[in-house]
Amino acid sequence: MEKLSETYFDDSVTPREHAIFELGIKLAAIFHLMMGTPVINDPEVVKSICEGIVSSISCQPFVARVDISLKPGQRGREFKYTKRHEFDYTSVNETNLVAEVEVKYSGWLAVGRVEWVSDLGYPLMYIKEIHQLSEN
Amino acid sequence: MEKLSETYFDDSVTPREHAIFELGIKLAAIFHLMMGTPVINDPEVVKSICEGIVSSISCQPFVARVDISLKPGQRGREFKYTKRHEFDYTSVNETNLVAEVEVKYSGWLAVGRVEWVSDLGYPLMYIKEIHQLSEN
Amino acid sequence: MEKLSETYFDDSVTPREHAIFELGIKLAAIFHLMMGTPVINDPEVVKSICEGIVSSISCQPFVARVDISLKPGQRGREFKYTKRHEFDYTSVNETNLVAEVEVKYSGWLAVGRVEWVSDLGYPLMYIKEIHQLSEN
Amino acid sequence: MEKLSETYFDDSVTPREHAIFELGIKLAAIFHLMMGTPVINDPEVVKSICEGIVSSISCQPFVARVDISLKPGQRGREFKYTKRHEFDYTSVNETNLVAEVEVKYSGWLAVGRVEWVSDLGYPLMYIKEIHQLSEN
Repeated sequence: MEKLSETYFDDSVTPREHAIFELGIKLAAIFHLMMGTPVINDPEVVKSICEGIVSSISCQPFVARVDISLKPGQRGREFKYTKRHEFDYTSVNETNLVAEVEVKYSGWLAVGRVEWVSDLGYPLMYIKEIHQLSEN
Repeated sequence: MEKLSETYFDDSVTPREHAIFELGIKLAAIFHLMMGTPVINDPEVVKSICEGIVSSISCQPFVARVDISLKPGQRGREFKYTKRHEFDYTSVNETNLVAEVEVKYSGWLAVGRVEWVSDLGYPLMYIKEIHQLSEN
Repeated sequence: MEKLSETYFDDSVTPREHAIFELGIKLAAIFHLMMGTPVINDPEVVKSICEGIVSSISCQPFVARVDISLKPGQRGREFKYTKRHEFDYTSVNETNLVAEVEVKYSGWLAVGRVEWVSDLGYPLMYIKEIHQLSEN
Repeated sequence: MEKLSETYFDDSVTPREHAIFELGIKLAAIFHLMMGTPVINDPEVVKSICEGIVSSISCQPFVARVDISLKPGQRGREFKYTKRHEFDYTSVNETNLVAEVEVKYSGWLAVGRVEWVSDLGYPLMYIKEIHQLSEN
């Protein structure tokens, strides 16, 4: 199946580049699956929400590792700390989501990350690391 | 806060009706949060994905109980049973999602459900039960 | 089909209540479909995004009217006004989305709305109006 | 801002690779934004939904072109052709979505596509073409 899928790709695409492509896909999938998900600042709730998406994304092709956490939001969208009344919660948004994904493809390991970068005012997705695996 | 929110509602809306309104909101929130979420037919993966959304929806106003499960999909979209190759997985869709929500509002308990109804060819959301609570 | 779907509902649910239930579903569907959608403060872009979701939600059962707009966001999440650089845009979030839906069900008209309510710090969904239609 | 964002990337990442990374991000963003969006087989409705997402994704960094269409679904999920009754519609799913994105980054043009590939039973995202731009 992996061979069949490769026939769709431009011939010039290398395994390293394919790994990078898959990394972009996974980061954006996490981001858009999670935006708007209700959440409170209870560690158990945060853990459960993050674990669900980790389990889900781990089903996707070439995923070797996924870590997801939620940091206190910025720009006035801090986590609310107790559910003091019925409306006292927030949702996953571009300022509080932090995710790191590791993709393995044909001997290459690519590590990517998405997190809010204050200087950009933007939830930047970037390639943190990429290198060839010694074996396999 | 609950009192303040009520001032936005049409005066004729009863607590029973308000409970029903909240029930519709919760069922649709679950449905649209989960559509397209990657999943395989591994009970641990399914459990983790469902628990994440249960935790999330439980943060929302007036939610007393949430149960979510995934049944084998229909119309050619059955769960794939092993991850035999990288593309061997499916995603949450309108045929495999089953969710039940219980809302409590001002002495009323409303129970709603969304599940695929083959005779309708549709993921029907419906009010399964509604009654007044004896106390509180 | 409508008759068949009614058999799933608790017998005590009235047409008026059914209209209210459907209203809750539609408001939450709009909300969760749109969260995280990239957008800039160009009226053409905003119009196009809103029209797409209006068209989509109008396919759903019992929908008589849908209006969606985006207002300048709050809490530091204002629309960015020009795409001065590649990262200069925002996304639909709970502070900028405004939607109004009209549902008709068995002689009842229900109008609902979702919009950010500063006093609640919350994107409140509420029943703005509900009344019986004179005819049909 | 673009320069600042580059400081987050692994030093070994080339402009060509960066273009590929952005391409993966955009394809997955389209896919996950659209999954579960209600739709009927009315060309006007389809056009409006697709145009909304084209407008939205065009706000994202480095996007030069976006085309989105919906083809008749497969595996029993064909478009329903008329809204004969209230439940007669479907939603965007992995079998009917077709999208093509063009990204320009530092002199490189990358074209990617997502569409259902029957032989894989999978909505494959792939790099259709990548080449250096003669100028700029």
